[in-house]
Amino acid sequence: MNMHNLLGSNLKTGTYNFPSQINELLDGLAAAPDNLRFTHWLKLLAPPKNQLLDAELIKILQKKASQPDGLIRQTTPNRVRLLRKELRKRGLDGFIVPKADEHQGEYIAKRSERLWWLTGFSGSAGWAVVLSKKAAIFVDGRYTLQVKQEVNSDIFSHECLSKLSPAEWTTARIKTGARIGFDPWRMTPDQVNLWSSQLKIAGGTLVPEDYNPIDYIWLQQPSAPISLIFPYKTQYAGEISSKKKARLAKILQKQNLDAILLTQPDSICWLLNIRANDIPFSPLVLSFAIFYKNGKVDLFTDRRKLPSKTMQHLGKNVKILAVSSLQQSLEKLAKKSAKVQLDPGNVPFWIDSLLRSQGAAICNNTDPCQHLKACKNKVEVQGARIAHKRDGAILCTLFSWLNKTIKTKSVDEITIDTKLESLRSKEPQYRGPSFPAITGSGPNGAIVHYRVTPSTNRIMQNNELFLLDCGAQYLEGTTDVTRTVAIGKPSNEMCDRFTRVLKGHIALATALFPAGTTGPQLDVLARQHLWEVGLDFEHGTGHGVGSFLSVHEGPQRISKGTNSVELQPGMIISNEPGYYKKGEYGIRIENLILVVEKSPAKGRSLAMLGFETLTLAPIDRLLIKRKLMTSSEIDWLNNYHAKVLKIIGPRLKKSHKTWLELATKKLQ
Amino acid sequence: MNMHNLLGSNLKTGTYNFPSQINELLDGLAAAPDNLRFTHWLKLLAPPKNQLLDAELIKILQKKASQPDGLIRQTTPNRVRLLRKELRKRGLDGFIVPKADEHQGEYIAKRSERLWWLTGFSGSAGWAVVLSKKAAIFVDGRYTLQVKQEVNSDIFSHECLSKLSPAEWTTARIKTGARIGFDPWRMTPDQVNLWSSQLKIAGGTLVPEDYNPIDYIWLQQPSAPISLIFPYKTQYAGEISSKKKARLAKILQKQNLDAILLTQPDSICWLLNIRANDIPFSPLVLSFAIFYKNGKVDLFTDRRKLPSKTMQHLGKNVKILAVSSLQQSLEKLAKKSAKVQLDPGNVPFWIDSLLRSQGAAICNNTDPCQHLKACKNKVEVQGARIAHKRDGAILCTLFSWLNKTIKTKSVDEITIDTKLESLRSKEPQYRGPSFPAITGSGPNGAIVHYRVTPSTNRIMQNNELFLLDCGAQYLEGTTDVTRTVAIGKPSNEMCDRFTRVLKGHIALATALFPAGTTGPQLDVLARQHLWEVGLDFEHGTGHGVGSFLSVHEGPQRISKGTNSVELQPGMIISNEPGYYKKGEYGIRIENLILVVEKSPAKGRSLAMLGFETLTLAPIDRLLIKRKLMTSSEIDWLNNYHAKVLKIIGPRLKKSHKTWLELATKKLQ
Repeated sequence: MNMHNLLGSNLKTGTYNFPSQINELLDGLAAAPDNLRFTHWLKLLAPPKNQLLDAELIKILQKKASQPDGLIRQTTPNRVRLLRKELRKRGLDGFIVPKADEHQGEYIAKRSERLWWLTGFSGSAGWAVVLSKKAAIFVDGRYTLQVKQEVNSDIFSHECLSKLSPAEWTTARIKTGARIGFDPWRMTPDQVNLWSSQLKIAGGTLVPEDYNPIDYIWLQQPSAPISLIFPYKTQYAGEISSKKKARLAKILQKQNLDAILLTQPDSICWLLNIRANDIPFSPLVLSFAIFYKNGKVDLFTDRRKLPSKTMQHLGKNVKILAVSSLQQSLEKLAKKSAKVQLDPGNVPFWIDSLLRSQGAAICNNTDPCQHLKACKNKVEVQGARIAHKRDGAILCTLFSWLNKTIKTKSVDEITIDTKLESLRSKEPQYRGPSFPAITGSGPNGAIVHYRVTPSTNRIMQNNELFLLDCGAQYLEGTTDVTRTVAIGKPSNEMCDRFTRVLKGHIALATALFPAGTTGPQLDVLARQHLWEVGLDFEHGTGHGVGSFLSVHEGPQRISKGTNSVELQPGMIISNEPGYYKKGEYGIRIENLILVVEKSPAKGRSLAMLGFETLTLAPIDRLLIKRKLMTSSEIDWLNNYHAKVLKIIGPRLKKSHKTWLELATKKLQ
Repeated sequence: MNMHNLLGSNLKTGTYNFPSQINELLDGLAAAPDNLRFTHWLKLLAPPKNQLLDAELIKILQKKASQPDGLIRQTTPNRVRLLRKELRKRGLDGFIVPKADEHQGEYIAKRSERLWWLTGFSGSAGWAVVLSKKAAIFVDGRYTLQVKQEVNSDIFSHECLSKLSPAEWTTARIKTGARIGFDPWRMTPDQVNLWSSQLKIAGGTLVPEDYNPIDYIWLQQPSAPISLIFPYKTQYAGEISSKKKARLAKILQKQNLDAILLTQPDSICWLLNIRANDIPFSPLVLSFAIFYKNGKVDLFTDRRKLPSKTMQHLGKNVKILAVSSLQQSLEKLAKKSAKVQLDPGNVPFWIDSLLRSQGAAICNNTDPCQHLKACKNKVEVQGARIAHKRDGAILCTLFSWLNKTIKTKSVDEITIDTKLESLRSKEPQYRGPSFPAITGSGPNGAIVHYRVTPSTNRIMQNNELFLLDCGAQYLEGTTDVTRTVAIGKPSNEMCDRFTRVLKGHIALATALFPAGTTGPQLDVLARQHLWEVGLDFEHGTGHGVGSFLSVHEGPQRISKGTNSVELQPGMIISNEPGYYKKGEYGIRIENLILVVEKSPAKGRSLAMLGFETLTLAPIDRLLIKRKLMTSSEIDWLNNYHAKVLKIIGPRLKKSHKTWLELATKKLQ
């Protein structure tokens, strides 16, 4: 398209009266939030080099992005009324609204925020069910406080996911013959099976609604996001895509599969060595892919996201198709009675049921890319180390700055967030935060997934704790770190709790374990010292972290729940025990740790696995109760601090280095 | 039947030419091994009181029981040939032989020892697959040594279950179109599904064979066992059967079920408060039951096992039916489209597939009795404490006797076993061992599930370890205990390993944890000090234990594997870390522990759970490396030993008490 003419004339007249084609492209670009931060997207419009034009386009994008989208953090009763009306039209007695999008991802496009739009709840996980008279919202322990603030309990009863499942709640409230609608793109076969068998108890049935009724009534719903898909260079990825595809093809051949359907964007990005910014926080391409046993790939995504350079990078073995032609490709597979592998915990029910009904032989199994990408190669591990050194220096600078500033000025939570972002933004490899930073001072620290807003923003007070949980996306890798520091003089109780959390953190960091060990087997190590005194924390101890991919990735996990994935060398996982006292303070100490082989003990043949701590930032010595620590725990802390000083010290300005020297002083 | 005349005249002539009815009853009685130990079964023949007659009947039973059954601990190649011939006749390319019987129980009747008969392998778990040219036997880590001794590797390749599943092995060795037979009574739907999807990969199919081909060729196969079913009195059970049935009925009503099929004998025995001796080691009634939502029960078992007193105890709500009429009852249920719950991990595939094909609505779920009976009531807990005091005194007597005897005489493993049995047999409430005692001296101790035979029997040597793992069935409860003692002077390495095992044992015994914690979450506590030096043990850390029921019961478990059952007050579980050095020695320290509520710590609201140790026997102080122990570990040991002395001391003869005083002396 000749952008120069098209844009130029419009800009001159100031009307922006673009052809619909360009207008739609700009709508999509405006729906991808990182396009407001970085300007790579300009390449997709391929305008001639013209600073004025660029600036004008950025302005247009900003204007489009600031259009109202209907997403507000409070319940709008009229929307529930409109939904019920739409359900009656369709002959439905109820409708299920998950948070999830069609990729079951953690961060989703604004367009997919149906749960938020309907209920006012902005948290990252939850379900709502709307019946003709009743409605409920279901959240987990992280969001019990937030849901009270955001969702009108007269309209949605507030339920806790761990106590009552949405399906159980619904089953208890429907009559025989009830028809409950669901969106087959946003629920998985596993979920649908669970729901079906529950509803059956009360004689109800589940009805797939291919066109989500909320999309009919949400008039301001944003467009699907569009962002530039760019090659992820081998200097960062460490392995070219064709090698990855060959490894995957071997897995298919071994299991006699014809194809595997990939629905998780991070799997697709890993496999093809591409990245984009379709959604906030993770550099992902929203897309589906069919991987064939011959190593060829059909990639279903918006063609407009792909500049020619990326097309070249993808090569002739990757065919680009529109998402709308997925049906046709699936039917083609099914007609050949192909053996197709799906991940029943992630694939849209729509895909599963189409393939089945058309005669494909379905093999249910976990997406193998999840495991392949979890085990980082040497280049990725090196990248992670680089990213952590860079981020460690930024964190030290921030805390040193805070330490100095707070002596003379009041500092609030938003200031910290802004300062952090400005420090990181100076790094050329920085590509945005890996999740919304948690800047919880005092009682806000006790809200596990707190995100500051102007209305919750607090000025830090003396004698309280400040919890900072933040992470960055760098081209070399993804970080995630939490530090809790004392502002003024901490109480005896705070120090007791902090020390117990630290002892758990150290126990996990120093654990040795045989090959075959899973995360849940190690979880108790992080909790034992809290349990000892009748305390606990209500979140997992560790999640996998991607390589310039999602900050939360599977398949490994350290938590109370069951997870049968063995920890293997190269896996990166967080180590983040905590303790939260509602209304008073929150404590969390989080480092990323890398699974490594430890040489076998003298004279014994069994090689054990262990962890290498990647994160480099001091742990607040003021909060440590020396008496509770064993001598080997003290040794670990002193060695860790010595390492932090040695690596981070030289990267700091003099004043910050002086602060770091004090912060990492040997504990006797 | 008029036994007096029938038996009297036969005895006189010495022919035992009984009518077939009585002959068959005696065959069944002879097939239940505990009938040779206890004479309760005489009641089933209802003979007149006549000591001479009783003695004669006992002799007949012994004679019948000593008939050859074809079970020898070595492979008989001809049997495999006969099986292959039978398979060819049936048009099968292979056959699967699990260890399991139709109840998926741990201990099975001799009649069900098809795996043993075919392969020579006598261990308690395993699988064999016989194809037209190849055959393999699959055992777990416990049996890798034993399988070498018993099974001819020219005929059966020896495979390790954890490395290669029988289904994978088979899949790699069959051609497209292969038909692999299996016994639908001895495999579960879960197993059949796994097998099916594996075989599908190679184009094979699974073929149910209602009549097990081995039963056709095993000419000396014993009868199904018959033993007296007796009421388990409320003074031991703590809750009358009608109350248990009411609790179960509530669960059915809540889930809108019409019936539940019970296939696990311990569930049925618990629910109906009955016991018998159909199989060794667990006082179980081999039976099936259908429990209806109205609280009525159809009990499928051999009517001949039931004296009138037990019929009265069962009452009118329990209908006795032959196992052969199970099909009819299931079809009746299915025709009404009843909602029936099955446990897919335990139910025979035959039952599942019959119900499905006839129109029943199947709900898959764990047998709820397993959980109900796992949480012991107050009377059962009190019974467990009584049983452990009694067994503790016996164990102390045994070890005191060993300590004295070995100074002057040589002692072998069989002598220990015999001495133990003779001590226990003096107790009127004793009902036999709860499993075959493991009396492992020196290198035999390293065989985790060692069972002494005349050919493996060893005389204990100086400067080695002796491991005794044994348990008893008492009317009040079931015990299971392991102690490892030094004979002579232990090596430094033995003491190091013993102390690490002990530290793990103590860490688990003293653990505090919140409600909702599962066994696998605690497992690492028992292993951490071994892992620290690159060591481990290849078995679970803890199994549930019944109340005068199976010594190994679910659903809770402490192990590396996944298990989502929460530990709840009243559950009894073993705490048995160990360490094994092949060819040298074995170490295990096992106590039974009871889950109890611990009062919340001062000023904290969260009530925690913990354990009460039930087992009372000293832990060998000679094997403890003082330097490796923390002061709180020493405190635990001293307190435990003080408790053992206080409770067991008064129950011992003077000389044994003196030994115990030394054995429990405070460690400084």
